[in-house]
Order: sequence, then structure tokens, then C-alpha cells
Amino acid sequence: MCTGKRTLLYDFTAEPGNNELTVKEGETITITNPNIGGGWIEAQNSRGEIGLVPEDYIEVKQKIAVAPAPSVGNTSVYSVFSPSRLVSSLFFPVSFSHSLFQASNGNDPWSVWNADPSGGSSNNWASNPEGTQTGKSAAPDPWASVSHGHPQAYQGPADDDEWDDEWDDVKSTGGYAESETGEGGAMQRGGAHATSMKIALNKFPGFSKSGPELYLLCKQLAKGKDRLPIYMGEVGPVWFYPETQLDCVVADPKKGSKMYGLKSYIEYQITPNTTNRPVNHRYKHFDWLYERLLDKFGSAIPIPSLPDKQVTGRFEEEFIKMRMERLQGWMTRMCRHPVVSNSEVFQLFLSYKDEKDWKTGKRKAEKDETVGVMIFSTIEPEASDLDPVEVEQKCEQFSRFTKAMDDGVKEILTVGHEHWKRCTGPLPKEYQRIGKAFQNLSSVFTSSGYQGESTLTDALTAAGKTYEEIAQLVAEQPRKDLHFLMETNNEYKGLLGCFPDTIGVHKAAIDKVKEGDKLVATSKITPQEKVTMAKRLSTMSYALQAEMNHFHSNRIYDYNRVMQLYLEEQVKFYETIAEKLRQAHSQFTTM
Amino acid sequence: MCTGKRTLLYDFTAEPGNNELTVKEGETITITNPNIGGGWIEAQNSRGEIGLVPEDYIEVKQKIAVAPAPSVGNTSVYSVFSPSRLVSSLFFPVSFSHSLFQASNGNDPWSVWNADPSGGSSNNWASNPEGTQTGKSAAPDPWASVSHGHPQAYQGPADDDEWDDEWDDVKSTGGYAESETGEGGAMQRGGAHATSMKIALNKFPGFSKSGPELYLLCKQLAKGKDRLPIYMGEVGPVWFYPETQLDCVVADPKKGSKMYGLKSYIEYQITPNTTNRPVNHRYKHFDWLYERLLDKFGSAIPIPSLPDKQVTGRFEEEFIKMRMERLQGWMTRMCRHPVVSNSEVFQLFLSYKDEKDWKTGKRKAEKDETVGVMIFSTIEPEASDLDPVEVEQKCEQFSRFTKAMDDGVKEILTVGHEHWKRCTGPLPKEYQRIGKAFQNLSSVFTSSGYQGESTLTDALTAAGKTYEEIAQLVAEQPRKDLHFLMETNNEYKGLLGCFPDTIGVHKAAIDKVKEGDKLVATSKITPQEKVTMAKRLSTMSYALQAEMNHFHSNRIYDYNRVMQLYLEEQVKFYETIAEKLRQAHSQFTTM
Repeated sequence: MCTGKRTLLYDFTAEPGNNELTVKEGETITITNPNIGGGWIEAQNSRGEIGLVPEDYIEVKQKIAVAPAPSVGNTSVYSVFSPSRLVSSLFFPVSFSHSLFQASNGNDPWSVWNADPSGGSSNNWASNPEGTQTGKSAAPDPWASVSHGHPQAYQGPADDDEWDDEWDDVKSTGGYAESETGEGGAMQRGGAHATSMKIALNKFPGFSKSGPELYLLCKQLAKGKDRLPIYMGEVGPVWFYPETQLDCVVADPKKGSKMYGLKSYIEYQITPNTTNRPVNHRYKHFDWLYERLLDKFGSAIPIPSLPDKQVTGRFEEEFIKMRMERLQGWMTRMCRHPVVSNSEVFQLFLSYKDEKDWKTGKRKAEKDETVGVMIFSTIEPEASDLDPVEVEQKCEQFSRFTKAMDDGVKEILTVGHEHWKRCTGPLPKEYQRIGKAFQNLSSVFTSSGYQGESTLTDALTAAGKTYEEIAQLVAEQPRKDLHFLMETNNEYKGLLGCFPDTIGVHKAAIDKVKEGDKLVATSKITPQEKVTMAKRLSTMSYALQAEMNHFHSNRIYDYNRVMQLYLEEQVKFYETIAEKLRQAHSQFTTM
Repeated sequence: MCTGKRTLLYDFTAEPGNNELTVKEGETITITNPNIGGGWIEAQNSRGEIGLVPEDYIEVKQKIAVAPAPSVGNTSVYSVFSPSRLVSSLFFPVSFSHSLFQASNGNDPWSVWNADPSGGSSNNWASNPEGTQTGKSAAPDPWASVSHGHPQAYQGPADDDEWDDEWDDVKSTGGYAESETGEGGAMQRGGAHATSMKIALNKFPGFSKSGPELYLLCKQLAKGKDRLPIYMGEVGPVWFYPETQLDCVVADPKKGSKMYGLKSYIEYQITPNTTNRPVNHRYKHFDWLYERLLDKFGSAIPIPSLPDKQVTGRFEEEFIKMRMERLQGWMTRMCRHPVVSNSEVFQLFLSYKDEKDWKTGKRKAEKDETVGVMIFSTIEPEASDLDPVEVEQKCEQFSRFTKAMDDGVKEILTVGHEHWKRCTGPLPKEYQRIGKAFQNLSSVFTSSGYQGESTLTDALTAAGKTYEEIAQLVAEQPRKDLHFLMETNNEYKGLLGCFPDTIGVHKAAIDKVKEGDKLVATSKITPQEKVTMAKRLSTMSYALQAEMNHFHSNRIYDYNRVMQLYLEEQVKFYETIAEKLRQAHSQFTTM
């Protein structure tokens, strides 16, 4: 039980509503309670402020022995998490100290493929001091928020202590789950898909470097209800789409607390259109769902990261509202996906009956073996097999397109962010000054003592006030239109960030099939297995094409919709200003 | 006859269309022709460019002997002008190196009274580097133009050589005219009214320091047609206003040249609504008129400076257009003034029949003795005499108001200038980038190979183009509205800059009258003269009130009009944008 002074190893920014304490690297704090658990300790800074700080952030003089808090097996968790934290702290400090966009899909996965021009643009946001400054203005710019100089992954502990009470059972399943949830969990908060993919592939000893064979060469394919048919639609291969599309509403965030109120959390109410019965989930549950979906479908279907935990707002309400909005966006996208929305784990999340049902379902989902590339074993295309050359062409085309779109999306985000800053910063200030200048001149005129002055002075004052109103309109506008344009593009940025992994699996499979003859020659595989590989590669290609077609149709809908919304609001905006000015104009007279 | 290399003592910026050569202090040039005359020499710079440079700007190794150019008595002129140039170069480099506003009414006359807060604001403009930068953008900002680091007065030579051919006669009238036109002429280009006032008062030996007495104590007042009646109107004392208001159109600038085409000049066509017969005048003629009006009416009526010679534009056409516009503004204001417009010299300027008529009229005007404070001797108020206390109160009130309005006007100019820069600089660039971002994304989408893409991509491209059009609109808008708001306020800034002098004369008179008893006691004046002084002070006060009432009625009209114009254009601007966006919106669809 050690307390006393400690030095901080990293910056840590408190997440609103969690009784956390913001501290700077090198700052000295006094530990007031080392027994919080979950990798947290309570500390007091020089200004006397008390709050929770992640244990790992504190210089270790001697290992802090953490007394298990009630119902929490901290030490195990602690040891589980620290390695991944270390890794991420070594790998990601730079990429993660970027804006939340950057963070939202980890360090730019494209950079692995080739230099990403717009990667730089993202950095601009964070490096730009104005970014935060705008936060002070009428409409704070959520796009300007940056993860505060330490890896997202470090935020892991914020919730992890709360995982455990429900995760002991998982731990006991030994083997991969632990390290996976540990690393995966920690990584996911940074949304580094490459890593999570690796996890999915590593899961099966001996295949760590050769993911695709696991499926290409496996003896028997899945049977029964798990099957995922692919039909030939007008646009080519398509998933099976249900008549009624699943949908849900994320709403009514409620604050709960635990650990004697020392740590609080938000619970969201999710109501699916199927049962119309609300279920409650906390962020960590979404996180759990995300990891399940990623493990199960990640090789075939890009599963976008959850909204970043680091979404920050000046006020807690703002922060909660923002996160909820993004969780809603994420859920909507998952609901819209015919395969994901139809999956058992997703249905469980949306419509579990009670705690028991939930826990049983969770346990089952975590034991699911049809994960990683094995998902392809459930896919059944109705069409005839494709030639490997054609498969490769398709794959190349998709990878080119997704890369190009990623650049385009990033450009819009950069430009939009700049525009947001101008609209909430210098521009309204200028209109305000114009308004003031008119009003000042008006009050000078009032002092003229000349008769018949009032018409002009009243008009001039009105004109001045009008420009002050315009200043207000300008400052508030981004929240009304630019906001959604940014949210949508940010969501697509995250989604596009998943394709390199998904496509990577296919490239690996293509390469393996190319080696076919050599493998036969060296009798690594039988001629029959070579045929099977080619057939299964064709299946993978149908899956990828179905997914791309799904992506395209959604993209076309989403961009039509967001542009309609954006332009609609823009029109209103300019019309309102014109009308105000028309009224101001009517007051001047030169008879 | 000396040629060869010379070093420049000051920067000199060529005035467009005058075959002048821009040179920098310290630069070495080669004199290619020292015999241009009029204080000019022809020189070649290191880049081989040849043009005219003022002789005085060049380091004097040995006095350059100037051979009289045909029809030009240069040496005499030269000697006449150089002293004043020297004076101004010593006194004004700082104040004149400000923006053209600053220059247009010389070094802030208010500063003599008390520290002028907004004086600083004017300086900002010049000191602001962006100022010039905007010159490069779509709509160059005339407000950003600054006199290029050397006193305005130095520009004198640019026209002075052309004065002489018509001024030899004046010179021959000996005495004051020479030094006056010399000093006054040079000073006037800087518009330093304090100085010009002094000139008017200095004109009569012995009264140099006691201007007002000249009138307060003069033996007999002017008779006949010169008289200026003052009536009591609704608003108080008013000048006599003619039924039909004089007006004129300044148009059709034509380029002329002289000295074998080495020096060119612009001739404007002025057509008064009275004769409807156009007369031609060059800038120097306006300048001559200005000086006559200033001498004659300056004590009673603020005569605004001519538009600054240094108005610069990127292109000659722009420069000429701008100067013409401002000469028009100046003439309109003079035409609107019942006293000025009715004066003989003004009528001469507008409607001389031929060269002979013009020259005779000029000579007469220059011999006019009813100048300076003597103008009051022609004023005849119909109302009864005012009490000196009341006179002082009125005077104080006017001086407070004009000072306050000067501040208000300067504020609008500062703010307007900032806004101009934003609208022509960063803002359109941003809209352009938004437009590009949309178009880029559109072209990425086109490459999707997915069918049914075109509706979105067409709409997205159209939206992108729309924002590029908006960028254009934004950049061009200031020329359509802000320009006139700025011009009007700039004009008023110049006008207000004259009041300290006009009011100063009154304050001097008031003080003198206050000394009345003392002067009688010390028998400097007779009791009768004391009574006369009070009576004449009352006359001066009526003149001042009439002038203030004239100013107020014009001001109310001008500001109503310019605000109407400004807001009208602003409304159009925002409506146009709204309409464009509405069209862009209509192309998106989410069926």
C-alpha cells in the first residue's frame, strides 16, 4: 500500500464525467488512494485537485500493489493490458497525437501501401493552434479536438476496470481471448485495424503468417444456418438483403456510477425497429460488439471503428451528445449491412431479453470459431467460379478506388475543417466589428444637434445590429450544415481505413493461389487442393464484390443525402441574411 | 552637361503613364539625358529600363546643369520648387509614408488638438503587408495603396514642369505668388491644410500671426455682387441656395503628351449642367482651382483636398478611372456648395469660353484680394448679432462633433479595409478549395465502375462548380458595394480633416474678442473697434453655423444614399448565392 509523491511519465487528459484528473508529463502528484483498481489510482495535483489517473502514467518507484476493489480482479487485468499499452505507446504517439480523424482509424493504414498525400493534411489540423482556439467561439469545432498528446490506447483503462466484473468468465476460457481482448481491446480504441486483423489471423497457431490458407485449404466448410448466400443482382454479386431493413435508435443516455461513485459511466438506450423494445448498453458493450464483429467478419467485411472515445466537448453534455450521435451512426451502418445485421451476435446485442440471456449470448459469441478468414467458409455464391486473373483485376480495382476515395474524403475533411475555423473565428468577429462601426457612427450623428437626424441614425443603428446578427448566424451555421458533411466524411474515412486489411486478405489469398503449381510440385499440397484453392478464391472474390457493391450503393445514398442536407441549410442561411439586409435597407431614405 | 552613374537618395515610384522610372534608394542609375527639364532627368537602371526620375532624387556629385527645354523655364522653376521640396522632405516623410487616406489630408490635423486614437488605425493599413498583397487578388484593394515611402511633395515635379509654360505670367506678378504657389503648390499635394491656411493668412505682411484681426478690424467691408447673404432657415442659419443646383460630369479622360512625347498627361472632360458645353482640364488645373478655393474660402468653408495624386492602380486604366471617379466626387461636392459653386473662379473653371478667356480669368482669380479671413467681410447675415458666449458654445460643439465623426469614419475605413482584404484574399480561396474538393470526390466516384453513379457525380461536380462561382462572387463583391462605402467615408475623412483649420480661425477670433477690454485699456484698439470686433465675430459665427448646417444636410443625404447602395448590393449578393445553391441542391436525389 504505497502512497506519496509521484512524477507523471505522460500527459493524461481527463475524460469528462469520469472523475479523472488531467495531468502533464513531469508533473508531480500525490497519490491519495492507490486502491481504486482497474489500473487507476486516485491522486491530488499541486493545485489540490483530486481525481483518477491511470496507474501506468505514474513513474514506478516500486510497483504499486493494488488491492482488488470489490468485484474487480484488477491485477490480472492490469498485467493483461500493460503490454499492449506499452506497444502502442511506442508505436503510436506520433500518429495518435493527431486529430480525432487520424485517431479514429489509427495511424494511416494507407501509408503501408504508399505515401499518403492527404495524411499530411490531417496533421495540419492538430498542429494548427487555431484548432483549439475555435473551441472558445460560438460554435466549438469538434473537428479540432485532438487526442491529447498520448496514445488513444492509453485511454483503455478508463473503462477496462468495468470490463472485468463481467469478463472474469472470459478470462477463464484461457488462451487467446485474454491477450486478444487485451491487445485488441487496447488497440481498437486506437482503431488500428492492421493490428486487429493480425489478431484474427494469429488466432490459429501455425497460420500466423499465412491467414488465407486456413480457409483455402481447410477440410470442410461450415454448414446450416450460418451460410451466407451471394446472388447475382443487376450490379453484379450482392449479399442477401432482407425485406425489412433492420434499424435502431440510440438515445436517452443515462449516467450511472460505481466504485462508491468514484467512477461514473454513461448508459445508452438502444431500441431496434424489430422488437421495439429498448435495451441498455454502455460504451464498453459497443466496444465488445465491435470486437466480435471485427473477429468474425473483418476479413470479408470492413467493420468501421467505434466512434473514438476521445471525442471531446467543452461540456459533458456536448461530449455525450457527440458520442451518442456517432454511436447512432455506427449502429445505423451496422444495421444497414445485410450480413452483420443478420448475425447472431448483433441480434443478441439489440434484443437480449435479460442479463442472463446477455451473458450466455456473450459467452457463446466469444467462443465462436467461425472467425477471421473462416467466414469465407460460410459464403455460398450462386454464380460459377471466377478466373483468378479476373479476381486479381477486381481486387486491384477496389484497392485503387478505396485509396482514391480515402484521399478525396480527407481533402474534404481538411477543407471543411479550415472553413469551420474561419466561420466560427475571424469571420463573425469581422461582421461584429462592421456592425459596431455602423452603430458608433450612428451615435456620433445623434450628437449633431441637427434636426431631422433621427431617420438616418435609427436606420444606421438597425443596419449595425443586423451585421451583429449576421455575425451570430455565421458562427452558428457550421453546426447546422458543415457538421453533417464532416460527420459523414469522417465516418467514411474510418470505413475506408478498413479496406486495406480486408483487401490485404484477398491479396494474400491471390498470391497463395498463384503459388499453386509450385506448392503441388514441392508436394506441399495435392493437385486437388490446388483446384479447391482456386475455387475458394473465387468465393472470396464474390464476397469482396458483394461487399463493394454494398459499399457503393450505401455511398451513393449517403453522399446524395448529406449534400442535400448541406445545400439545403446553406440556402436557408444565405436567404436569411438577404432577408435581414433587405429589412435594414428599407429603413434608409433619400427623398 | 553631365551624365554617367548616379546613386539614388530616395525611393521613387513611377506614376503610371508618365514614362517615369521606379527606383530604390541606394540604387545606381545611368543618366541617359539630363536635358529633360522641369526637374527631371532621363535615366537607365541596371535592368536597362529607361525612364524619367526627379533630379532631386539623385545624389549630387556636381550640380547638374539643365539646359532649358523648349518653352520651359526650368531653372527658375527648379529653384522655386526645390526649397519647398526640401522642407517637405524634412517634415513629412513619416506622415506621408502612410496610406493614401493619411496622405489625402496630410499628417493628421487632429493630432494638433489632442491625441487621435484612430490615427493609429490609418497607419495600420499602410504598415499591413497584406495590404499590397490583396492588390494581386481578383479585386485589388485601392484602400491598400500607400505612398511609396517618399513624401507626396516629391511628386511635385511630375506636373510642375507643365505648370510653368502657363505660369510664367504669374511668376512675373512677383511677390507672394511665386513663393506661395511654390510652397503652397508643393504642400497642397500633401494636402497639409494647416500649412495652406498659414499661407492664406501670411499673405498680408504684419498679420502673419494674427489672421482674424485682419477681418475683425479692417476698415471697410466688401461691396457689391461679392456679398454672401445668410438666411435663417428651419435648421438655423443657412447659405443662399440657388433654385437649380449646379452639377457637372467628369468624363472621357484623354491622354496627351509633350516634350517630344517624353512626358504624357491625362486631360479630363468636364461638362456642367448649366452650359452643357464640355471643357477640358488636366489634374494640375483642378489643383490650381483647389488652391484658389482654399485661399478664398478656406477660413469659412472647409475645402476638401483633391483626390491624392498617389492614387495607384495596377494598370494605368485603373489608375485613371480611380482618379477620375474621385475628381468627379470632388467636383460634385463643390458644385453642391452654394457659395463655392456660385463663385467666379469656379464658374470660370466650368465654363470658360476659350484659352484667352481661361488665362484672363486665371490671372484675375490669382489677383483676388478677398481671400483668407477677408471672406467674412463679404458675409451678410440677416439675423441679429450673437452673444460671444453663444458663439463660443457653437464653435466648441462643432469642433466636438467633427472630431467625433472623424473617429467614426476612420473606424469604418479600418474595418472596411480589413473586410476588403478578407473578401478578396482568404475567403474566395477557401470557397475555391471547397469547390475543388467536391469535384475531386466526384471524379473519384466516376471511377467506381458501379452503375447508376452518374446522377451523384454530375450533381457533385455541379455543386463543386457552384462553390467556385461563389468564390468569384465573393472576390468581386467589394468592388460593387464596399467600394462606395469606402469612397464616401474617405471623402468625408478628407472633408473632416479641413475643419480643424476652419474652426481654428474662429477660435482665434473668439480669443481676440475676449481680449477686447484689455486691448482697449492698452489702447491697442478703440472702444468702437471692440464693438465692431464682437459684431464681426457674430458674422463669422453665422457663417460657421450656415456651413455646419450645409455639412449636416449633405452628410445625411450622403450616408442614406451610400448605405442604401451598399445594402442593396449586399442583398443581391446573398440572393444570388442562395439561388445558385438552390440549383445545385436540386440535382441531388435520394429516391
